[in-house]
Amino acid sequence: MAQSSGNGRTGGVLALAGGVGGAKLAVGLARILEPDALTIVVNTGDDETFYGLHISPDIDTVTYSLAGLANPETGWGYVGDTFNALETLKTLGADAWFGLGDHDLALHLRRTDMLRSGMTLSEVTLDLAGRMGVRHQIVPMSDQRVRTIIESTDGEMSFQEYFVHRRSEPEVIGLRFDGAESANASPVFHTALETVDAIVFCPSNPFLSVDPILALPGVRDLIAAASVPIVIVSPIIGGRAVKGPAARIFETFAHKPPSALAVAEHYEGLATHFVMDNEDEASREAVEALGYQVLVTETLMTEDADKIALATAVCEMAAVAI
Amino acid sequence: MAQSSGNGRTGGVLALAGGVGGAKLAVGLARILEPDALTIVVNTGDDETFYGLHISPDIDTVTYSLAGLANPETGWGYVGDTFNALETLKTLGADAWFGLGDHDLALHLRRTDMLRSGMTLSEVTLDLAGRMGVRHQIVPMSDQRVRTIIESTDGEMSFQEYFVHRRSEPEVIGLRFDGAESANASPVFHTALETVDAIVFCPSNPFLSVDPILALPGVRDLIAAASVPIVIVSPIIGGRAVKGPAARIFETFAHKPPSALAVAEHYEGLATHFVMDNEDEASREAVEALGYQVLVTETLMTEDADKIALATAVCEMAAVAI
Repeated sequence: MAQSSGNGRTGGVLALAGGVGGAKLAVGLARILEPDALTIVVNTGDDETFYGLHISPDIDTVTYSLAGLANPETGWGYVGDTFNALETLKTLGADAWFGLGDHDLALHLRRTDMLRSGMTLSEVTLDLAGRMGVRHQIVPMSDQRVRTIIESTDGEMSFQEYFVHRRSEPEVIGLRFDGAESANASPVFHTALETVDAIVFCPSNPFLSVDPILALPGVRDLIAAASVPIVIVSPIIGGRAVKGPAARIFETFAHKPPSALAVAEHYEGLATHFVMDNEDEASREAVEALGYQVLVTETLMTEDADKIALATAVCEMAAVAI
Repeated sequence: MAQSSGNGRTGGVLALAGGVGGAKLAVGLARILEPDALTIVVNTGDDETFYGLHISPDIDTVTYSLAGLANPETGWGYVGDTFNALETLKTLGADAWFGLGDHDLALHLRRTDMLRSGMTLSEVTLDLAGRMGVRHQIVPMSDQRVRTIIESTDGEMSFQEYFVHRRSEPEVIGLRFDGAESANASPVFHTALETVDAIVFCPSNPFLSVDPILALPGVRDLIAAASVPIVIVSPIIGGRAVKGPAARIFETFAHKPPSALAVAEHYEGLATHFVMDNEDEASREAVEALGYQVLVTETLMTEDADKIALATAVCEMAAVAI
């Protein structure tokens, strides 16, 4: 049970996550925190319609990960899935570059059908995660549509188009979150911002996975007003992203190569605590100079034990009872 | 090439079909007639939305049959299909009594997506059949929605609900075709009615599969005005339907047990030729007395050779050049 911390807050941890990297820490947090002591808010800027279905790639990755159903080879998709529908879609003239397995397809079918019946994405996400056995709350950042648009030398495109279809090849020159200014933080997200004892930024791409969440009206202000530990877990280890297109994105938007320090600079003034990998210890002082309390530890999460160890270290740093 | 028959008509055969039985004769006709000499018009009264997808059961059965992709065990569905999406749909809370395989699902996804993009069901059906290698024209009876509603002692339900979900158990007391009065025969169907040299009623359920087609405004009049052979192939052999719920339906609507004669009576005045099975020879004279030219032959179609033989007999009877 989440305990009141005496500051009028009712406790618990709010974790902000994107896809595979964020999902790993979310799994660790879910292993050590009770269901009512953890709310995982997930980026939906990369949601897209494929084959007429509403796909929420990051929500699915987090949900499958917590349910123990994620493909361990990729971190996303359904373990041991088959691709018979996709194979046939190709023969039927669909532009089927976005891979979807057959089990996975059922999730998108069900989500799309439920959304069309009038349920919110928050309601659908909670229902479907619950049916997969997930007891912790996974909620979208917003119930309104926000689209992360990559502006490139080849024109504008969605993240999936850029990353999956175009293999991160177009040169990125800008980024925007269409619809963010008129969207609201989802109800559970909003409540969590006002009640939790700590906020954890999971190791997800700052520009592509976390900034869409921060772009929602009021979110930055509520984080600043929370007066609780705000912990950043660096997604960059030794100058490299564990997964995804961070390197070129950093060059474009931070005008520097990716590094733990660059991540710390990105969140300067918003967050209070910073967790970086042993490999990056050399920049510890530079990060501390930005005003962070710093923890240097092993942050690469390969096994479940790594996820639990990192989650435990994060909670201890944030003085969250586990 | 269809040849002009000297009556101002440009030739060819129009076949009206429902599901499995109709599809068998359609396959036979397609084997002996050139693509421009055969138009297959299919019942869409049983079309329904499952899992948010537009399903056209009879169109799919005819298309898979002509493409050589039908499951030979059932006559419907995709040969060798897997059911992984359906299995997962059940775990996700879907009321998943309508079985759909994974390959099959792709067809429904694609159709639904194309319809939503603004294409007509005729356009979608032709495109998808063509991609499956079908060279003959398969068209829906209408591009507008017509719903066959079974009125039963357990309330109103669709045919799929009655036949698949409720296993034909509710007592049928009425039948109606919602939307038929304001729907139009599809453009290709309408043209075929005005141009073909023969119309063949494939061995499909008269009440459930053919009557919805005949309920479309103008269709009965165009058939009557055609002055070409109108051939009925009896779906009842030896008092039994080869497949489907014909027996109880006949009791309800024809007030008699199913028989070749009852089929002939059902179409009396509309059709000119009647094909019945050897098993039913005893009622030959009674059928002739209704004004039909009668052919008694082997009508049970098990192998492709049976389909071709019956199709050949039908065309010869209708004086269609093959």
